[in-house]
Amino acid sequence: MRDRTCALVVIGNEILSGKVQDSNAYFAARELRKLGVALQRVVVIPDEVPTIAEEVARCSANFDIVITSGGVGPTHDDLTMEGVAAAFKRKIVIHPELERLIRAHYIGKINAAGLKMAEVPEGAILNEAGDIRFPTVQIENVYVLPGIPQLFEAKLNALKPRFAADPYFMRAIYTSATEGVIAEHLNACLVQFPELMLGSYPRIGNPEYRVKLTLESKNAEYLDRAFRHLLSLLPKDTVVKIE
Amino acid sequence: MRDRTCALVVIGNEILSGKVQDSNAYFAARELRKLGVALQRVVVIPDEVPTIAEEVARCSANFDIVITSGGVGPTHDDLTMEGVAAAFKRKIVIHPELERLIRAHYIGKINAAGLKMAEVPEGAILNEAGDIRFPTVQIENVYVLPGIPQLFEAKLNALKPRFAADPYFMRAIYTSATEGVIAEHLNACLVQFPELMLGSYPRIGNPEYRVKLTLESKNAEYLDRAFRHLLSLLPKDTVVKIE
Repeated sequence: MRDRTCALVVIGNEILSGKVQDSNAYFAARELRKLGVALQRVVVIPDEVPTIAEEVARCSANFDIVITSGGVGPTHDDLTMEGVAAAFKRKIVIHPELERLIRAHYIGKINAAGLKMAEVPEGAILNEAGDIRFPTVQIENVYVLPGIPQLFEAKLNALKPRFAADPYFMRAIYTSATEGVIAEHLNACLVQFPELMLGSYPRIGNPEYRVKLTLESKNAEYLDRAFRHLLSLLPKDTVVKIE
Repeated sequence: MRDRTCALVVIGNEILSGKVQDSNAYFAARELRKLGVALQRVVVIPDEVPTIAEEVARCSANFDIVITSGGVGPTHDDLTMEGVAAAFKRKIVIHPELERLIRAHYIGKINAAGLKMAEVPEGAILNEAGDIRFPTVQIENVYVLPGIPQLFEAKLNALKPRFAADPYFMRAIYTSATEGVIAEHLNACLVQFPELMLGSYPRIGNPEYRVKLTLESKNAEYLDRAFRHLLSLLPKDTVVKIE
């Protein structure tokens, strides 16, 4: 089976200071899951080169795919390229193809700030970005995406074919019992099916159920057996719904 | 001036797999900012003891305050207490006061799973949690909060008086110019006012302005001077609104 792990590094003081609610992490989490990719870390850090460098280096070493969000643009607080370059101990250089695209876009109105957007870590490659004019910069296993949600989403969508892994299968059980009551059954199920990804999510104030249980695996047959086993363990009258 | 830094560690597979959108980070970011506390890191990690231990240990060493969200409860995937204990190389023990509160709440219906919720790292202390029945567990500078938003928010609100630092002051400038045009003025302003926290946030498709600039400082007089200086640098006809 093809497994792939991923980390998302969100860069931006505006998120840490509560001025803006990040939506890229939730979008990425859902889309990566659909692709069969295991998102294992999301981290939000400030616009600071050493912090970006440290986090990107660490994630690059520990995960198959690293996606960054934000900190690309022409102003003083756009430090992601510099941070990623530092993570890989590379110089910043002007990418000729990016420069050409930027000059074509701004038609003569280009200044130093505009050209900053053609700067990339040495050896970076460019990926087609679907409908978006500017390609996505890639250095090793790190993909540098913009923070603006419309652009982040379009660029991530364009990268999907490259990221896809084997899919997850999921079943769900909704129960009227509390977590305290069902905990022992969940433990018993995991003894039989240690590879099962089993989540238990209480919901306060929902009239239909108290806990939603999610069962997941990349092996459909294993999931089906685990699902039937857990159902057989739970008190019948507490199972409200299955999916 | 009293500065305080903070890291938020969000624990939960359900967030990484896109089943649930975290809202606690955005709530914490806004509330901490109002308190004058600098949130400098948000990290979302899976329900795994070694990962929780590593991240909590690292954040505890690097920030004044660490808040965890999620992974507390009676089931197999509630591993935050175990992770925090491992971060500080402490044993897990039953806290007598928590046990008393849990037994009183469940009135005789208590089982092993319920009692798991009285387990804390050795030496943990309990903090009053406002309207919430169960107090907030604290180990060193780490505060362990539940992931359910209603409970997370109530518990964080109860901790506010303890966290408060000197406030931030903020001004904003909305401009019809693009980032490429104003970047040089932002850089010039920062040369004069290197301590200024200056953010530049483009907005796609907004008819009123193209970029929102935020200026912040804990020193109101410094902020006022920086604000007037930046206004004097920007082309007059591009300033749409100030706050």
